[in-house]
Amino acid sequence: MAADPSAAAGQSSEDEAAAFFRSAPPLRDRDRVAGELSEFVTRHSAATGRGGGGLAGVVCITSGGTTVPLEQRCVRYIDNFSSGQRGAASTEYFLKAGYAVIFIYRRGSKQPYCRFLPEDSFLDFFELGEESEIKVPDSHAMVVKTAISNYRKAIDEGLLLKLPFTTIFEYLQLLQMASTAMNCLGHHGMFYLAAAVSDFYVPWESMAKHKIESASGPLNMQLNQVPKMLFILRKRWAPSSFCVSFKLETDPDILLQKAEVALRKYGMNVVVANELANYKDVVVMVTGNGRTTVVRRPSKEDDVEEQLIHLLVKMHSEHIVQLNQHHHALQELI
Amino acid sequence: MAADPSAAAGQSSEDEAAAFFRSAPPLRDRDRVAGELSEFVTRHSAATGRGGGGLAGVVCITSGGTTVPLEQRCVRYIDNFSSGQRGAASTEYFLKAGYAVIFIYRRGSKQPYCRFLPEDSFLDFFELGEESEIKVPDSHAMVVKTAISNYRKAIDEGLLLKLPFTTIFEYLQLLQMASTAMNCLGHHGMFYLAAAVSDFYVPWESMAKHKIESASGPLNMQLNQVPKMLFILRKRWAPSSFCVSFKLETDPDILLQKAEVALRKYGMNVVVANELANYKDVVVMVTGNGRTTVVRRPSKEDDVEEQLIHLLVKMHSEHIVQLNQHHHALQELI
Repeated sequence: MAADPSAAAGQSSEDEAAAFFRSAPPLRDRDRVAGELSEFVTRHSAATGRGGGGLAGVVCITSGGTTVPLEQRCVRYIDNFSSGQRGAASTEYFLKAGYAVIFIYRRGSKQPYCRFLPEDSFLDFFELGEESEIKVPDSHAMVVKTAISNYRKAIDEGLLLKLPFTTIFEYLQLLQMASTAMNCLGHHGMFYLAAAVSDFYVPWESMAKHKIESASGPLNMQLNQVPKMLFILRKRWAPSSFCVSFKLETDPDILLQKAEVALRKYGMNVVVANELANYKDVVVMVTGNGRTTVVRRPSKEDDVEEQLIHLLVKMHSEHIVQLNQHHHALQELI
Repeated sequence: MAADPSAAAGQSSEDEAAAFFRSAPPLRDRDRVAGELSEFVTRHSAATGRGGGGLAGVVCITSGGTTVPLEQRCVRYIDNFSSGQRGAASTEYFLKAGYAVIFIYRRGSKQPYCRFLPEDSFLDFFELGEESEIKVPDSHAMVVKTAISNYRKAIDEGLLLKLPFTTIFEYLQLLQMASTAMNCLGHHGMFYLAAAVSDFYVPWESMAKHKIESASGPLNMQLNQVPKMLFILRKRWAPSSFCVSFKLETDPDILLQKAEVALRKYGMNVVVANELANYKDVVVMVTGNGRTTVVRRPSKEDDVEEQLIHLLVKMHSEHIVQLNQHHHALQELI
């Protein structure tokens, strides 16, 4: 009998993933993070779907770029561009739609409810009043107050768990931990993988220990491919979850084709395709049933994420209803 | 007659620098920035030293890491680690010592007077009061109020000019513009080059236009050396200025030796040597007259920069006095 080539590809992905995790420096605070994830998922698991009160689901949102260290004592690294604007905005809309959110974000990237605030010197937003009380100029008072109040609400109600990362090693360990913790949620769990993850890395053990010398001549580097973890997430970590991944390209001619390939190859429910030139204004949702283009209406909307999350929440709840109907039909047959 | 080898090295540095600037994408807002620099330097030039009122000098502080794009439509880049903590802290102390400061900083890096504020979600610092006024918890009120008040003072008095950069191309263009603008200040101008500048880059014209494909196999890259701009700054842009540069290494065994080489090679007045492992607590000032170790006293000081700037300001004013005495002596001879 001939070997199944897709099974062989799967096995090789799993071997590569295992090698990656063996090589990675272990996450600091791993136990604390595991505890927080377990507590968060358990608390919301009861309230999700099956007879529970009101929670639409639990979504794990990843956001920002990953860094790839080039030296063990890291001075230089390779980075992927991402402000984290999409992940931060989407977190706000998922919370508004009744989800609990695990927000896995790059340190320093945009935060939910902060994205309309100035980037560098928030001091420009504040003044001292006559009795040295802290004031915000009237022009910005509403946006700052709304931000503080919405953020406080999400934190106080325990609906937002924030977990930071910097390197590709930290990111993939956090994703693995969140996925396996969320596995118990079944199809009520959702992944919204908006982080810009590096495709290449230098294995920790083959990395320069000290700062690479710049004394003489050009620098030659060889980088390995990062294992395709979406494949493992789908197959092992949380196989029943609803999975949304992103595809960013600079060349529009190959974008949709690559999104279709990713959809099939990794068994995603949705691949959101976007171009670097206009990713803030247009995205295409690629699914097994076709494509839906979402365009920001400039005069009416601040961002494209509001519509996108609205459509994804609808798809996710239809997906849950369908799976529940299948489940009931099966039970009646038995 | 044999050619002077150091002249030849100088010429090759200048040729490399010229090639770098020809290849670099031109700075956005170049004219606006040039105007701001010229206005700032002219305004403070009159008040500096020679009979002017009180200004100790004008210092150009560079801060944060530079990025090196790997693709023209930049998704991936190589980055140098630097929070910008040193540059931000030093800016505060130079302002306190009576300097006007041109702060050339990496976007997103630490800002003067903000370095004690939380990194990611400054929302954690703020609350809404009963009448929805913005409040800061008592535990943090003092630090936030002092920050706002000191920052406002520096801005309102026109003593701080902030210029952001991201890439190595932007950084070196800003440094060139600031240096040539400051040349008229003579030895009253100071450079404090704390930015972590990449040693390697990919020339713009040889860069991939689109996102590098990750489809197959490992990635090989070749990076060119960035021309040694300190050399050009010293020789052409602002030859009479007081120059302080930094040397960061992970390996303590080669650190001081490399600092000495840099001191001589680029004609610096001071090279501040620091190790990645303890750069917040210990620095060594390397000068033509010897070495001075500056150690933070943990119970007494928040940072090592306060002592460092104190010593540098003293050296700079002694340098000015000496040069003025030489100048007077020369004039009397004539």
